[in-house]
Amino acid sequence: MTDINERDIAVFEAGIKLGALYHQFVGTPISSDTIDGLERIIEDSIALQPHIRSVSVSIDREMVEKKQNPKFKYCELEGRMLHVSLQILYKNIIAYAELAYDEIQDYPLMSIKKIEEM
Amino acid sequence: MTDINERDIAVFEAGIKLGALYHQFVGTPISSDTIDGLERIIEDSIALQPHIRSVSVSIDREMVEKKQNPKFKYCELEGRMLHVSLQILYKNIIAYAELAYDEIQDYPLMSIKKIEEM
Amino acid sequence: MTDINERDIAVFEAGIKLGALYHQFVGTPISSDTIDGLERIIEDSIALQPHIRSVSVSIDREMVEKKQNPKFKYCELEGRMLHVSLQILYKNIIAYAELAYDEIQDYPLMSIKKIEEM
Amino acid sequence: MTDINERDIAVFEAGIKLGALYHQFVGTPISSDTIDGLERIIEDSIALQPHIRSVSVSIDREMVEKKQNPKFKYCELEGRMLHVSLQILYKNIIAYAELAYDEIQDYPLMSIKKIEEM
Repeated sequence: MTDINERDIAVFEAGIKLGALYHQFVGTPISSDTIDGLERIIEDSIALQPHIRSVSVSIDREMVEKKQNPKFKYCELEGRMLHVSLQILYKNIIAYAELAYDEIQDYPLMSIKKIEEM
Repeated sequence: MTDINERDIAVFEAGIKLGALYHQFVGTPISSDTIDGLERIIEDSIALQPHIRSVSVSIDREMVEKKQNPKFKYCELEGRMLHVSLQILYKNIIAYAELAYDEIQDYPLMSIKKIEEM
Repeated sequence: MTDINERDIAVFEAGIKLGALYHQFVGTPISSDTIDGLERIIEDSIALQPHIRSVSVSIDREMVEKKQNPKFKYCELEGRMLHVSLQILYKNIIAYAELAYDEIQDYPLMSIKKIEEM
Repeated sequence: MTDINERDIAVFEAGIKLGALYHQFVGTPISSDTIDGLERIIEDSIALQPHIRSVSVSIDREMVEKKQNPKFKYCELEGRMLHVSLQILYKNIIAYAELAYDEIQDYPLMSIKKIEEM
């Protein structure tokens, strides 16, 4: 096949970031009160990694509330609570990727949504 | 020996919290710009766990700056960058514990500092 | 109160180990086929830490099977799948601690079970 | 640009796996004695994830020995100790990716090496 190109690298980098944030932050103690702070620090931490153009994290408030232990009033961040949209910019290619809970497959699905030339 | 007492439980809980936060957050991408935010979210996350009376996290700014990759401008949170002081309150016992880098042993040392009755 | 004693340290170390292993390994991809291997490596990794006398990890096979995604045939290690028994030996004190899923509280409970003098 | 194609997905999946294993396992206590076991379980865990054709993990023995704390005889798995080669098979596309320590940049570099049609 053809050589590795800029599009390949942009898409590959997008995958790295989603895999990384998922396995870094899943397991973090969380409650309704810390959702905002955790969303921001995940965004800010991942934004440090190479070739990130933007990253937006939102954690499912309803799931957190449902999962909170009634006695201890907190739960742990789970993959299916995470909704992440990010853009990688590599050279002049933008790759858009997403992590979103897929209810039908009951799976936190990572996908590449769009690839653009700037 | 004597039965498990409240002092044992307070001290045990202190150990749990330090072990937990260390292995949850080590590896997080970090730069000088995200230190404050990461300190706060570690505190807020750990404060959710049972029997925490207070927790204070500070990350060694100098080490972060020294470790930042010159090209990519970030590094990863390491255990030796962490300074944590926390208090567990169990029944009327307060246990004070700490995580601090021990330079001589080159080891991120967790220790129990003081135990008080309220 | 009295000064920190050997019993305090043994119990504190037990807490550290349980907190550490929980937050290090939760999130690991797992299936029925990898349970044995994962149990062994968690034991072997935690046994490296100071003052461990023994550690035994078992992962709930039934829960793993129930949680395995039907399409992808794996799930992730969760805290409630873990049953851990460990012994800390500090000086001549042995502290016995446990992590076990508490069904009534729906919580992976860490507890100190027994403290002995050798 | 053109729509997302099979090549994009293969490359994206390769990135996910490398990011995931890195942030799941970095921080694990390790010594010369547990290297083999840890290599195998990282391979076996990641091989469970979708579209993996093969994965081979090797941990730098020399670095582990050098990093082992002289008193405690262990260290923690760091990203730069990891050498990983993996293949993703998506439809009839094979993507070859690698994680290897780049000494010049002092960085654990993930890269896509080759893309083939079966």
